[in-house]
Amino acid sequence: MNYPKGIKTNSTDNYIKFDNRGMGLESDINLTNQYYVDKEIAYIYKKPTPIQVTKVDYKNNSIIIKEAFFKEPSTTDYNGLYKGMYIDFEAKETTSKTSFPLSNIHKHQIIHIKHIIDNGGIGFLIVRFTSLNRDYILMGKDLIKFLDNNDRKSIPLEYFEEKGFIIQLSYTPRLDYLKVIDKIIGGIYGKEKEKSC
Amino acid sequence: MNYPKGIKTNSTDNYIKFDNRGMGLESDINLTNQYYVDKEIAYIYKKPTPIQVTKVDYKNNSIIIKEAFFKEPSTTDYNGLYKGMYIDFEAKETTSKTSFPLSNIHKHQIIHIKHIIDNGGIGFLIVRFTSLNRDYILMGKDLIKFLDNNDRKSIPLEYFEEKGFIIQLSYTPRLDYLKVIDKIIGGIYGKEKEKSC
Repeated sequence: MNYPKGIKTNSTDNYIKFDNRGMGLESDINLTNQYYVDKEIAYIYKKPTPIQVTKVDYKNNSIIIKEAFFKEPSTTDYNGLYKGMYIDFEAKETTSKTSFPLSNIHKHQIIHIKHIIDNGGIGFLIVRFTSLNRDYILMGKDLIKFLDNNDRKSIPLEYFEEKGFIIQLSYTPRLDYLKVIDKIIGGIYGKEKEKSC
Repeated sequence: MNYPKGIKTNSTDNYIKFDNRGMGLESDINLTNQYYVDKEIAYIYKKPTPIQVTKVDYKNNSIIIKEAFFKEPSTTDYNGLYKGMYIDFEAKETTSKTSFPLSNIHKHQIIHIKHIIDNGGIGFLIVRFTSLNRDYILMGKDLIKFLDNNDRKSIPLEYFEEKGFIIQLSYTPRLDYLKVIDKIIGGIYGKEKEKSC
């Protein structure tokens, strides 16, 4: 979930602290997506944060929202197109060195990822283990396989090591996750193409 | 753009009036999308309304947004997957009997549709002429062709009659727009398949 960053509050804290907001990762992804657009490689964009508006006001012909709430997200953060393929993912950071807490992912987001896969899209997670300086892609099917076979409240690092794919940080683009996706689906799509033609 | 409906305001009007909010059309599309999911035909969903949050407050460990503004949308309302293809569209109503006002579509939405097409997706408009009881699909390429060749502030009905495709209303689903899309791309994709295999 992506709350706006650095919002001043009326509380004693100057800035709200959210768990796993992942702004570092988010910033890397946004820069990378801009690179993809500039180089005409792909078009992947961030969806707006879902907000429930409950009270509005009119002022000089413009509408001001006076009361609203962040809603639990029912989809993922990012989606778009790469070589004609539907790409969809959620990006999360964790400070844990040993596992990724599943409280980071909402039930509706899992259902969303299932829908994406069932309808021929490519759905995955990007998880940054900040303490390890490591970014993983975990494909949707492997996420769902884990959830179907475990009652654990977190996915252990070993599962990422076994099923995940590391994204190497680079200068430009910062986080070339599509290069990794390309290798993963290259295999799958290659085989499918062989069959159909 | 989809503002929340029926919000009580502090103004003398009981409810805010927005131009071309298209709730009738939106409701038809939402029902249709639910039908597509239930019948495992497609997965197409509505994106959240983009909102800029400027002030929040904390109360009992939950966050209340105290000030926010509707942002100009930079993408379209709906996107998703159909038979592995990326689907993306904007839905609008007009009361005009003769043309569709282009003030309904923002510059960034046009750029978005261009990106969708350039990257192998299927982008289009669904326009309801409420006074005529007629719903048209106008494919993204025909929308852009019109904009590239005209300085007009609206697209005349004749252009929809010439380039658009009528969606017939039915009972279930209400607005089977994918049936129409299927016919349109069936031709295109059929030809491409012929070439590549």
